[in-house]
This record gives sequence, C-alpha cells and structure tokens, in this order.
Amino acid sequence: MKTELGSQIRSLARSGEFAGQTSGRAPDYLQGNVVILPERYASDFLHYCLNNPKPCPLIGLSKPGDPTIPALGDDIDIRRDVPSYRVYRDGVLSGQSTDISDLWSSDMVAFVLGCSFTFEAALIRNGYRVRHVELGCNVPMFKTNIETIPGGIFSGPMVVTMRSFPEHQIPEIFDLSFRYPHAHGTPIHWGDPEEIGISDIRSPDYGDAVEVPDDEVLAFWACGVTPQASIERAKPDICITHAPGCMLVTDVLSADVLSETPPVVDVSLTHLLTQSTSNVEGNGGNLS
Amino acid sequence: MKTELGSQIRSLARSGEFAGQTSGRAPDYLQGNVVILPERYASDFLHYCLNNPKPCPLIGLSKPGDPTIPALGDDIDIRRDVPSYRVYRDGVLSGQSTDISDLWSSDMVAFVLGCSFTFEAALIRNGYRVRHVELGCNVPMFKTNIETIPGGIFSGPMVVTMRSFPEHQIPEIFDLSFRYPHAHGTPIHWGDPEEIGISDIRSPDYGDAVEVPDDEVLAFWACGVTPQASIERAKPDICITHAPGCMLVTDVLSADVLSETPPVVDVSLTHLLTQSTSNVEGNGGNLS
Repeated sequence: MKTELGSQIRSLARSGEFAGQTSGRAPDYLQGNVVILPERYASDFLHYCLNNPKPCPLIGLSKPGDPTIPALGDDIDIRRDVPSYRVYRDGVLSGQSTDISDLWSSDMVAFVLGCSFTFEAALIRNGYRVRHVELGCNVPMFKTNIETIPGGIFSGPMVVTMRSFPEHQIPEIFDLSFRYPHAHGTPIHWGDPEEIGISDIRSPDYGDAVEVPDDEVLAFWACGVTPQASIERAKPDICITHAPGCMLVTDVLSADVLSETPPVVDVSLTHLLTQSTSNVEGNGGNLS
Repeated sequence: MKTELGSQIRSLARSGEFAGQTSGRAPDYLQGNVVILPERYASDFLHYCLNNPKPCPLIGLSKPGDPTIPALGDDIDIRRDVPSYRVYRDGVLSGQSTDISDLWSSDMVAFVLGCSFTFEAALIRNGYRVRHVELGCNVPMFKTNIETIPGGIFSGPMVVTMRSFPEHQIPEIFDLSFRYPHAHGTPIHWGDPEEIGISDIRSPDYGDAVEVPDDEVLAFWACGVTPQASIERAKPDICITHAPGCMLVTDVLSADVLSETPPVVDVSLTHLLTQSTSNVEGNGGNLS
C-alpha cells in the first residue's frame, strides 16, 4: 500500500474536500499545530513557545504577512492548508473555518508547533497499538493543573493528550518518544490522571473520549493545543489556530528529524523506568 | 593563549587542587550540573528531567554503580571530578565535599544536566560582555515563583541564573542561545524580576550578587540548580549534587553539539523579539 503524502492531505484540505482530523494520515510526515497571530503578539507568543518546549516545540515560523513556510513544505499556504481552523476573538472561540484567507493580513505571523501524531506513526511502525487511531477518532485531550511557563501575555494550563498501553510497554515507549522532542518527546505523566488534575477521562476538554482497557496504563503527553488554553487567558483581539486534531501536514519526513540529543545519553532509559512503571501509583507527579 | 582543556579542570578537581566555580574555565567545553541518587529514585528523577528540559537538559547518565560517563569524557570519575559537591540527607544540605567516593555505592546513578556556562563562552566568543565572568565571581541564581512540572516525587520552583545586557543585544542573545537547548536555550524571562517572584536581585539564593548597570536589561535563564530545590521537597534519604557553579567540565566541545532544531526554523527570531524588547515592561511573564 502506497503511503499518503503530506502534500496530498494539504491539497484535500485546500480544496475543502477534507476538513477532518489528521491522526494516522500521511504517517511518514511531520504534522504541526498552528497558531496565527498579528505581529504585535508574535514576540510574546514566540517567548511562550521557547519557554515551553514540551507542549510548544517550535518547528516552523512564517515571515509577517507571508503565508508560506518553506522549511516545512514547498507550496504551503498556511491560510488554506489546515483541514479546519478555529478563530478566537478576545480569547473567545468565535468560529471554525476551512479557509482563513479573508482573515489573513500583512502583519499576520504563523507559528507551527510539533505534534504527537508524528510520534504515533512511529509507535504504530514499531508494533504498538494506538487505540484512537484504530478507532479512527481523535485523541482525547485534557487541561491539567500544571501551569506552563509564561511568555509575555501568554500563560495557562498545560493541555495533554492521553493514550493507554500495557504496563510493560511504558519503558519502551519512553525510549521511543525520547527521540521525538519536536513531537512532545516523552510523556509528562503516566498513571493516575487525578495527579495532574484530570477528574474524568471520559470527558476530554478537546477531541474524543476513548475507552481504556482495565489492564492498561494511562500515559499523558504535552499537547500543542496548550496555546489555545493560553489564548483564552491572554485574549488577543484575534488569533487563528488549527482545530484540535486537524493538523498542518508537512513535507518533512519524520525519519529525517529524529533527535539524537547531543551528546547522546548512551544508556537506554528502559532499565531506569521499569522500576517505577512496576508501581504506577508511586510514579505519578506528586503535586502536594 | 592556549585554551584550557576540560580534562585539565577535572584533573585539578580530582587532585583537590581546584574546588572553585567553573564559569569561564575551559570555555570550549560543555559543562554539566550533577545529581547523584540511589537507583530507587532514578526513575522519578529521570522523569523530572524529561519533563523540564529548560532547567534540566539531560546530557549524560551513568549506569548504576558505574562512576564513568563515556559519552562525556574518556576518564570521567563522577565521584571525584566535580570541583565541589553538596550532600543532601532527607532533603537537607548536610555537607560539602571535594570527593564523594566514600558515599558512592553500587546502586548510585549519576545524572549530568547541561549548564549555561557553556552558553556564556559562546556569548563571550561573540563579543558580548558577561559581567560575573569579568568579575571572576559566580553567576547569581534565584528561586522563582514558576513551578516545574513534577516527575514522580520530584517537584519544586524553577531556579534561574541572571545576567544583564544592553537592551539592543537581547534579540541577538535570544538567537544565539536558541542554538544551545542543551545549555538551557533561550532566557525564560527578561525584564522585571518581580514578575517571576524575585524580590531582591542583590540577594541571590545561590552564587554571588553582581552589580547591574542602570542602562541594562535583566535576562533570566532556567538553571541546573533547579533539581537542588526539588530535592529539598522530595527529601530522598541521600542525594549528592555539584555545589552551585562548580560544574563537571566534559571533553565534549560545545561547538560539536550546537542544535539546529530540526526542521530548522528558517527565520531569525530577532525581528520578532525587537518589538517587545523595546518595551521590556510589556514583555515580562504575566503571572496574573
């Protein structure tokens, strides 16, 4: 079976034929969260991204007023290539659209942040099951009680994605995700969701609820929807983002941007993580 | 003038001849913060590092009971090569030493985290003044009101280092530090120290107080002393760290581990940062 290309998803999005979530689509290609702001907010938002590399790994940035992002794809038009956009006015979600050309102006700056869907493809390639992909639905996303590091006017709770795995897979999944810092890297928490302020995993703040088998462990990754929570607090007069799960799919092959954190930590993380994952309760973030 | 080698500093530290702070020493070589813990705590601490890449960029990790760290230097003996160590018992600083061989055991694991001194050398090479280096004293370090992301039993306030620069240099310093993610990357804040909970810059929590010229802007970097604040809260029965400012100097050339964040963001950050730095007050982290 021939793999879908990033450019194919963008064409479908640009023509309006596809407005859905991109989990599992064009699996070989880097996907990105999108935040579009007037230049007067760009410095503070850039600062926010740089301060929060786990939820906001900056992988692309446009010039003011320029809708192209050559670093991520030859023909990207950030005004039309995201399957579905959200428009926030004064921090309030005011609409959803598949084309924001009418809102684009000469001072707009587009930020692209890495996305865990990139890493999901690597999970699947390595034989791990990703349930929401199998179900063809969006990943469940939750606001946590973890505060991000402010950047200018931007601050707010970290948003996370949730996946579940058999306990014995957790260390391997850490080792694998460690190599994808531009796709949120390792989980920020696993085990008890209440320890990061999630009271009901059946009611995600974004995305779809997904059943969790009793014998599986929950793992939570920092999520590129975090900026949308910060926008609610910062209240810029206008901000355009992707709709959660509906990512910009790039032409960059994920395999080409694997990180070997320099200098390479020459010990597998697995043996260190096994211990705690054998006692999930003892492992969660202790917020007390 | 011949440049000092990392191995020379380690030899001096190992022999006990040198027990001081390493800012400005062996400037071409990567320096690291050190945290040594029994293996039963290693998983939680690893988790804490991975959750907080700004203050805790993991650059080296030992095998349990093995005092060598080949990734960072051929002959490293982590029990003796740090100029000065601090010993914490139940989270309380209980002593300082230049050799912790007597405390090392078969289950000890050593973590090495990147250090901003690496980045200072780059600043100086690029013609920027680093005042505490010129004064031959330690960098001022402060606990902030920014909470790190918990990892297992480890959590606590972020500790930052403080430097000051003429306002027009701030954007260039962002561009430069952006390339050193393993050395804390870009500043987490600049401008008003009170916005990150620092009430008196003349009274650092660690290191030395340094005079700040009236016409300069304060810049704050996440600091590898952050784990020491988390140890006070986690209270492991024993933990050994470097003494603040007294780093492990490695054999890794800083120039060899420059990051080109993949895919490269192909726009300088400068033009985006100029705007806010022209209005420092408007730029600080808004914690309200």
